[in-house]
Amino acid sequence: MRPNDRALSDVRPISITRHYTRHAEGSVLVTFGDTQVLCTATVEDGVPRFLKGKGQGWITAEYGMLPRSTGSRMAREASRGKQGGRTLEIQRLIGRSLRAAVDLKALGEVTITLDCDVLQADGGTRTASITGACVALMDAIWWLQQKGKLKVNPMKYLIAAVSVGIVDGEPRCDLEYVEDSNAQTDMNVVMSEDGRMIEVQGTAEGEPFSHDELLKLLALAKGGIDSIFELQRQVLNENHKGQ
Amino acid sequence: MRPNDRALSDVRPISITRHYTRHAEGSVLVTFGDTQVLCTATVEDGVPRFLKGKGQGWITAEYGMLPRSTGSRMAREASRGKQGGRTLEIQRLIGRSLRAAVDLKALGEVTITLDCDVLQADGGTRTASITGACVALMDAIWWLQQKGKLKVNPMKYLIAAVSVGIVDGEPRCDLEYVEDSNAQTDMNVVMSEDGRMIEVQGTAEGEPFSHDELLKLLALAKGGIDSIFELQRQVLNENHKGQ
Amino acid sequence: MRPNDRALSDVRPISITRHYTRHAEGSVLVTFGDTQVLCTATVEDGVPRFLKGKGQGWITAEYGMLPRSTGSRMAREASRGKQGGRTLEIQRLIGRSLRAAVDLKALGEVTITLDCDVLQADGGTRTASITGACVALMDAIWWLQQKGKLKVNPMKYLIAAVSVGIVDGEPRCDLEYVEDSNAQTDMNVVMSEDGRMIEVQGTAEGEPFSHDELLKLLALAKGGIDSIFELQRQVLNENHKGQ
Amino acid sequence: MRPNDRALSDVRPISITRHYTRHAEGSVLVTFGDTQVLCTATVEDGVPRFLKGKGQGWITAEYGMLPRSTGSRMAREASRGKQGGRTLEIQRLIGRSLRAAVDLKALGEVTITLDCDVLQADGGTRTASITGACVALMDAIWWLQQKGKLKVNPMKYLIAAVSVGIVDGEPRCDLEYVEDSNAQTDMNVVMSEDGRMIEVQGTAEGEPFSHDELLKLLALAKGGIDSIFELQRQVLNENHKGQ
Amino acid sequence: MRPNDRALSDVRPISITRHYTRHAEGSVLVTFGDTQVLCTATVEDGVPRFLKGKGQGWITAEYGMLPRSTGSRMAREASRGKQGGRTLEIQRLIGRSLRAAVDLKALGEVTITLDCDVLQADGGTRTASITGACVALMDAIWWLQQKGKLKVNPMKYLIAAVSVGIVDGEPRCDLEYVEDSNAQTDMNVVMSEDGRMIEVQGTAEGEPFSHDELLKLLALAKGGIDSIFELQRQVLNENHKGQ
Amino acid sequence: MRPNDRALSDVRPISITRHYTRHAEGSVLVTFGDTQVLCTATVEDGVPRFLKGKGQGWITAEYGMLPRSTGSRMAREASRGKQGGRTLEIQRLIGRSLRAAVDLKALGEVTITLDCDVLQADGGTRTASITGACVALMDAIWWLQQKGKLKVNPMKYLIAAVSVGIVDGEPRCDLEYVEDSNAQTDMNVVMSEDGRMIEVQGTAEGEPFSHDELLKLLALAKGGIDSIFELQRQVLNENHKGQ
Repeated sequence: MRPNDRALSDVRPISITRHYTRHAEGSVLVTFGDTQVLCTATVEDGVPRFLKGKGQGWITAEYGMLPRSTGSRMAREASRGKQGGRTLEIQRLIGRSLRAAVDLKALGEVTITLDCDVLQADGGTRTASITGACVALMDAIWWLQQKGKLKVNPMKYLIAAVSVGIVDGEPRCDLEYVEDSNAQTDMNVVMSEDGRMIEVQGTAEGEPFSHDELLKLLALAKGGIDSIFELQRQVLNENHKGQ
Repeated sequence: MRPNDRALSDVRPISITRHYTRHAEGSVLVTFGDTQVLCTATVEDGVPRFLKGKGQGWITAEYGMLPRSTGSRMAREASRGKQGGRTLEIQRLIGRSLRAAVDLKALGEVTITLDCDVLQADGGTRTASITGACVALMDAIWWLQQKGKLKVNPMKYLIAAVSVGIVDGEPRCDLEYVEDSNAQTDMNVVMSEDGRMIEVQGTAEGEPFSHDELLKLLALAKGGIDSIFELQRQVLNENHKGQ
Repeated sequence: MRPNDRALSDVRPISITRHYTRHAEGSVLVTFGDTQVLCTATVEDGVPRFLKGKGQGWITAEYGMLPRSTGSRMAREASRGKQGGRTLEIQRLIGRSLRAAVDLKALGEVTITLDCDVLQADGGTRTASITGACVALMDAIWWLQQKGKLKVNPMKYLIAAVSVGIVDGEPRCDLEYVEDSNAQTDMNVVMSEDGRMIEVQGTAEGEPFSHDELLKLLALAKGGIDSIFELQRQVLNENHKGQ
Repeated sequence: MRPNDRALSDVRPISITRHYTRHAEGSVLVTFGDTQVLCTATVEDGVPRFLKGKGQGWITAEYGMLPRSTGSRMAREASRGKQGGRTLEIQRLIGRSLRAAVDLKALGEVTITLDCDVLQADGGTRTASITGACVALMDAIWWLQQKGKLKVNPMKYLIAAVSVGIVDGEPRCDLEYVEDSNAQTDMNVVMSEDGRMIEVQGTAEGEPFSHDELLKLLALAKGGIDSIFELQRQVLNENHKGQ
Repeated sequence: MRPNDRALSDVRPISITRHYTRHAEGSVLVTFGDTQVLCTATVEDGVPRFLKGKGQGWITAEYGMLPRSTGSRMAREASRGKQGGRTLEIQRLIGRSLRAAVDLKALGEVTITLDCDVLQADGGTRTASITGACVALMDAIWWLQQKGKLKVNPMKYLIAAVSVGIVDGEPRCDLEYVEDSNAQTDMNVVMSEDGRMIEVQGTAEGEPFSHDELLKLLALAKGGIDSIFELQRQVLNENHKGQ
Repeated sequence: MRPNDRALSDVRPISITRHYTRHAEGSVLVTFGDTQVLCTATVEDGVPRFLKGKGQGWITAEYGMLPRSTGSRMAREASRGKQGGRTLEIQRLIGRSLRAAVDLKALGEVTITLDCDVLQADGGTRTASITGACVALMDAIWWLQQKGKLKVNPMKYLIAAVSVGIVDGEPRCDLEYVEDSNAQTDMNVVMSEDGRMIEVQGTAEGEPFSHDELLKLLALAKGGIDSIFELQRQVLNENHKGQ
């Protein structure tokens, strides 16, 4: 039995709150159950040096966890003097996923930085981050359009993500922390609205997984992500009507 | 005229929400107007090496700002590889202030870490941090008492803080960002419940300030802090009744 | 047409040379075409602090590239003062993959460190590293057995890895650099000898990939890895006969 | 009884030696009793990036202690790889105080760096640094004038500083180390020649301090600083006559 | 008796393999007995900032050891976050020695970086590095000439290096590790082809050394280096004939 | 003609002032002309980890330059976050030289740290450091003897150092900065009182140097160092008489 009597294919209650803080061009609080991530999008003119003069924009991401977002306190990366390997891996994943959603040529010489900061962690922070950052990015792009800095919307499709895994021998969707830490296999899937895949990262924590198990996990992920896309579209439509 | 028609001696609307996140022994969201700081208190057994065997506890603090808590994005200190001077100065102030409120001998060999993370900044983040961290600290101490790890409450008195300053030639209480960035003099005051001072840090940003101006600023601070103590006691009493 | 007229399902010429350098308990030079990686296994008594007293061993990995292993010189990470995100991501992958191949309880309180240093790069350095490190690890385990420090061989199965991807619309096995840098989709697959998966990391560099494309890539990976297992067994048997 | 039979309101014997080393545009050895600080002023063309094109100059400070300036050896910050929080706090204070003494617009696009290095420490190193750096700064400005790079002297007034505190219940001026380490309250005061305040930093190390105690400490500081201004003017006049 | 029955004046078997890896403009594997160093030369346009506009080129070097090039594993400098003092000292020596061999004015505004990475260590890695880097540098210069970027060969003479030392009271040439770690005196000598000295670094590890001992060590070094020059010329001539 | 009409074999006026600062067990200000270095010796119980239980002591050194000890300001290493290669090279040389003067077994499990901080630089700071540190070390050893912590004096002989070089084609002793920066060859020599060598580091900055030139430089160094030993003995005798 899963915690809270969830069905194997159910995602946790998910909420996406736009305009959560005031300064950023996009600011979204996303929650997957007890996981809470604040995703802000910052628009800045110009691009990093390696892109100068190539007539395209850039999208990048940074990820952090508040020291006591977790069950026991983690040392603050700023005071340890560097970001750990897990942090770098996650923020590279977030940035890469969101770049796949945008036509960078159409964006123009602008950099959008997605900051995903975990206020409270209960599993699935990276997939929640991608899901929330996508909405914050859309808000930032609309902000650019309202300012007249962009004519065409360079977003190709929404993207969303969920974690799936095999726990106690059964494939489950959207693992929370107690499940994640006991999973035999853990997989993060990022998809585009048209049902194709942007990232698939499956890891055997215990036993290797079979081809058949992989297929079951992908099916669960597809189902979970479809319900997330619905929520993303709903919270974004509210805005559009208002505009 | 101050923003929002505030009187010179008024603090902004202040709120203190306890149990804001789930994992920490104390977790408080404090807001002074648009300034929002999440203050968590973490209890850990043992003390830093320099205190080993001295039969006393330790209280320390760390401070951080989310990259887009501010009007323009600040580089993340974790990715820059070190905490800046302002950050270190503020977290030293927070830790020192809270140690002044506690009988460290009575605390026993326990370390309490206060993490103050600014979600949104609009001036006065260090004084809001001290104010909120005091409540989170009280919750952590009560947690220790409920666990039977502490018999006597080692808290000597509540502490609270406010910023005051001279803007456009007039002394004002609880500066928000537009005032703070134009202040001729800026002062942070931390007081104990009995009306004495724990820290006074006054800085002439423009013109030096006279003895008379100093006295006016202290009086404003005293008034503001008194109203904050009232709120602290109120939110803490709610709990006490429930216990 | 692929470079060197390779068929889409062909891996490049692969060689695995054991005992390549003299000091390490396992030392393997692995080449996939022009990609050359030196993999050494170092055995040390004891385990990291977080495992002390748990009665198990540890396997970890570090990865590096010589500055001029690549077409243009990369800054040396030691002189830049930190390992980049790509490096950390790769060494975490190598370590995790090899831990999946070993019964850490049976290993006892011993740490084996796999150092994978790229002497020359032409695509697929992380999968070559895993493939070579597995052989170096086996040699280190045999060394422990010869020294009488291990009675049972804790290796559960060999592991091997290959990169696959979609280039010019066609799925290909074992991408070399000119292919990798033009791939629409790039996927690294790590498998165990029994044909199950230990890691699958697929990334859409350009277009998202469909479920059908994923299946084709996995099939290519399976074929490539099977031929690598054959080579691993062959070079390891040479030794065994000699012992 | 204070060490050396000092009266409560007495500063220690103070000396200010100009032109102490040869290379710097200003070079001052300042001693407050056994506290010895070498303060050099370096003039460089240009300003930091954040001030480019604003038609003003910049004054900044760095502070350091020789490893064995103290009773027991302190680790060298250069070999530990970073400046500690106390160091950063002090050098921010020194820089801020000296900027308050200068009309930065009148200085022009020039940066003056004050390096304050403690050769021997016996309490009050930050206030001695400010006092000595002010004289070194004046020498650097005169050097600019002699070189014809400045027409008007941009120095608005001299500044000086002293520490005061409550030890054994009595307010005392210019604490030396044995007093400082036992003070209930410790306060650093920086003033301008006209008797106004530039910085007031009071800290309750033990008991909070009352409003009345604050006033007594400020009065002591004023008296001490007045005598320091006299000495500063005296050593600077020697020069002026010579010019 | 020396290991392998070497005479006191003998260098170990030395080999120099050019074009060892494919990407670099010069790539040499040099071995002195069991010491193996990969030396690559990278040509880049432009010079470091401090040389801009001075109409000359620059030659610099970096040195590293693979973690398990040694008998027990050394921590990777990239993961420790800095290069150690020994590494910096050696790479400064290599760069300085090679700059002495080249007319930097004749080189033009080009930077050549010599990376010397120790694959296996058995004493004398710094002198092997200099010896191999000289050949890699020559290849890089010939590459520049073939590309038409250099008309005149700016190399003034070949340079080579050897370590000598006093072990068990007797002066010996080209110490291997077991000798080096027991030497009373250790000396590294870098010479130019015409028999003059570029660097002499003699260190008394145990007893100080006399003037007479110094002379004997220099004579041994001269003999060893002469035989190395012969090998360098031989491997370089092979190429020249082919061109 | 040399600056100040010095003869080619003359050292500059040298002074050695003991007990220069108050806290350290040995504290010496050494000056060679305008070069001024403060050398302190700190005695601490215990030894570094790699020597634990070996029944011997340790001597180590650290070197630093005040930012404006030089003609133009150098960035402070503490704020740059690391010690540069030159600094590390020099402090390794100082420590190694002083260890050669002491019987570490006879010292017992004690660590003596020599801090050499350059207050003013005019060439020859490393040789001045060694010369001054030797006297500070002797004072620290006498302090250990007076405290009854050492019975036998473990100092084997005094050591001293001087720089020599070839400037304008002529060998000169004790180069000052204007000579050093124009030297064709630069050599640092450290000797023991009995006339043997502890370190010889000769570098061809321009032309390589011949065997004959090397001999001339060594003779100059011997003469200079002999006069320094005389001064060391003189300042140390003053003390001895007093004890």
